[in-house]
Amino acid sequence: MSDPAFAAEQLGAFIASSRPGTLPAALRHEGLRSLLNFFGGALGVAQDPTVTTAVQVMAPFSGPQRATLIGRAERLDAMGAAFVNAIAANLLDFDDTHLETVIHPTAPVAPPLLALAELRGLSGAALLHAFILGAEVECRIGCAVSPGHYARGWHITSTCGVFGAAAGAACLLGLNAEQCMAALGIAASQSAGLVENLPTAAKNVGMGNAARNGLLAALFAEAGYTAAPSALEGRLGWARAMGDAPEAARITEGLGEHWEFAHNTYKPYPAGIVFHAVIDACLDLRDGLDPATVTEIVVAGDQLLLDRGDRPLRNARDARVSIHHAAAVTLLRGSAGVEDFEAAAVHDPAVTALRGKVRAELDALLPRGAARVTLLTQGGERRSIEVRDPRGSAARPMTDAELEAKYRINAEGHDAEAQITRLWALEAEADIGTLMVLFGRPDA
Amino acid sequence: MSDPAFAAEQLGAFIASSRPGTLPAALRHEGLRSLLNFFGGALGVAQDPTVTTAVQVMAPFSGPQRATLIGRAERLDAMGAAFVNAIAANLLDFDDTHLETVIHPTAPVAPPLLALAELRGLSGAALLHAFILGAEVECRIGCAVSPGHYARGWHITSTCGVFGAAAGAACLLGLNAEQCMAALGIAASQSAGLVENLPTAAKNVGMGNAARNGLLAALFAEAGYTAAPSALEGRLGWARAMGDAPEAARITEGLGEHWEFAHNTYKPYPAGIVFHAVIDACLDLRDGLDPATVTEIVVAGDQLLLDRGDRPLRNARDARVSIHHAAAVTLLRGSAGVEDFEAAAVHDPAVTALRGKVRAELDALLPRGAARVTLLTQGGERRSIEVRDPRGSAARPMTDAELEAKYRINAEGHDAEAQITRLWALEAEADIGTLMVLFGRPDA
Repeated sequence: MSDPAFAAEQLGAFIASSRPGTLPAALRHEGLRSLLNFFGGALGVAQDPTVTTAVQVMAPFSGPQRATLIGRAERLDAMGAAFVNAIAANLLDFDDTHLETVIHPTAPVAPPLLALAELRGLSGAALLHAFILGAEVECRIGCAVSPGHYARGWHITSTCGVFGAAAGAACLLGLNAEQCMAALGIAASQSAGLVENLPTAAKNVGMGNAARNGLLAALFAEAGYTAAPSALEGRLGWARAMGDAPEAARITEGLGEHWEFAHNTYKPYPAGIVFHAVIDACLDLRDGLDPATVTEIVVAGDQLLLDRGDRPLRNARDARVSIHHAAAVTLLRGSAGVEDFEAAAVHDPAVTALRGKVRAELDALLPRGAARVTLLTQGGERRSIEVRDPRGSAARPMTDAELEAKYRINAEGHDAEAQITRLWALEAEADIGTLMVLFGRPDA
Repeated sequence: MSDPAFAAEQLGAFIASSRPGTLPAALRHEGLRSLLNFFGGALGVAQDPTVTTAVQVMAPFSGPQRATLIGRAERLDAMGAAFVNAIAANLLDFDDTHLETVIHPTAPVAPPLLALAELRGLSGAALLHAFILGAEVECRIGCAVSPGHYARGWHITSTCGVFGAAAGAACLLGLNAEQCMAALGIAASQSAGLVENLPTAAKNVGMGNAARNGLLAALFAEAGYTAAPSALEGRLGWARAMGDAPEAARITEGLGEHWEFAHNTYKPYPAGIVFHAVIDACLDLRDGLDPATVTEIVVAGDQLLLDRGDRPLRNARDARVSIHHAAAVTLLRGSAGVEDFEAAAVHDPAVTALRGKVRAELDALLPRGAARVTLLTQGGERRSIEVRDPRGSAARPMTDAELEAKYRINAEGHDAEAQITRLWALEAEADIGTLMVLFGRPDA
């Protein structure tokens, strides 16, 4: 490979030559923020039936070396732990977002690396480094095929997540350049996940597989299995089979200088990201307002907001992508947390009544992600607020303190303060195994 | 589901309502032929380094309940056994072929079903039934997207194999119609595998995953995970994400009446199927011929034959898709078995010398799969034979006796006669577990 031509070759050489501790401090801090957000999200849903079912199905197929399931007493081998923790982290879509690609970067990448590092006693610095490289590879490959890839029906967090998991695991295993390339090529032959299945639990299997199969790719590469150097952009390779010729330069240009992962963002609310401006506007509007006096709520946004959110409401899954529910529950309760989008909130008579007063309308002049909410009250008052950069957007990122606050809510019943302290100091951790003890549950 | 509309719904209802023993006798016999051919193929390469590596990588991730690895002493859980046995069965592309789709139907479907049946003590009749249904679903879905799917870069045996494995496992688990539908939908979110990777071991990972992930899909469906009924043909579903709108009627029309699986064929030679006519012609031509007197060998065929087979030769993988090697080794040795395409044969000086006298030329009038071989000798003799329907083709299928002979060669060192007898009588087998004992190796 003296003259690296293909993307997987260049990525392989980059991963194999990169060393822990050498990345910019701001980037490493973004990695810590992502991991804090990841652990909180997984802890918050650790006992959800979807997660419990995944544990039960995978348990009979777990080897003896067991890794931590976040927030649970059971343990599974690295494949099973990668699978289950990835499902949990992404379950409510309350995780992170790389906005250009709409990839949730951390859920498929962190779990296999944590499991590997836990079982092999690797350091926090090595883990953080491998995680950032994996997430970077994932986002770069996503950029090369966006936006057509998702629009065509590919659930990009799964289809690109497997590359991130493979790259990160290859890095953590200390594979050489050729093996790293093979890991990416083997990942290409495992890339899957469909938008059509997003409203169902089949989505969760896709997420779990991205994590599990990425690890498998790295382990087979370590054992000597090969792949086509052209697996990503070749004529019969990943990108073209899945859609069109990729913008291959996006995968490799400025490697080590420009970082896509630096653009990662975090969600303050467990609702679709386009609804965050609606929620922010409603939080501001309710200052000194008696919700009982509201007669009409008009939510204006672009076509995407209406396409995603102007729909009938049947269950909690719908609530997280409903303009009407987001506006009503936020105005009424002054909060937009996990429980405000659960079944009890959906069927709460007061929320239901206020939801009936919400009307969505198109304002094609509003930019993507923006919303204007206008209230009319019995007293004839009219209040209107327009939000263009909601909390958590790239222009207004969640602060470390806000991420900690989100974590504390998700981690109720766990030792959140100890966990937060240890996570910020991850690079000082000599053995991830001792860290993960904090995240399991000693009793069933 | 009172009015089944989507393909997965119709397939689900079909699978759930079908009962062992009710399929036509000829179809069941074809199932037995496929399984005989499958076991032989897997036995023949059981000690191949690629298989051994797969066992070593998967072993640490195996749960306690262990299933047979064909021809090996180790055992793995059902996921691992499905993965490894699928790789072995397809390793040399010496397995079966559904010609319209170029799917190798048995390799991804039989292994998960055998592992499930072994571990749960299910009967041979149940196994055979589930296998035929699974292979049928696999071929039908393949027909709906062929030929564009493979041409675009999808390794169709992997991408459709996962559906066959899911359908067969769902049948064997006795899932209801809705669960069977979910299994297919979950399989859709796991479908992967690239033509670009075919010359490498990444291909084998794709094969193993088709088997393993199909089983996973059925187990998650059994546990209550759901999928979109429209996962196969929906706007953002499997077929359209992967290429174009499918010919969805091919998936469901005449279910239970017309059987795609009945068109399965078997390979007499471990070489690409388009080379079989070349081999047959050479076998006939060498009657009474001294190969040392041959001065020139001209192989004529259509563009596909030349595209696939007129290429430089570096190793055994190339040899199996080389016009020159197929003609030379067959003429010289009068055989075209596994060892005739291995490294020793590739580097055999006599074969190498004769290979140098082979010339490929286009005859666009010859139909696909046909070849004409013409020999010139020192004495000025000219012999020419044209083969249009090679042994193993749909027009000239391998007989049961020929399949047995192929099996005996593959199963050297095993108790082939006992195995053959038991396989033909599979439907009388009360417990697949007692059958599988015949196929492992008691000692390491």
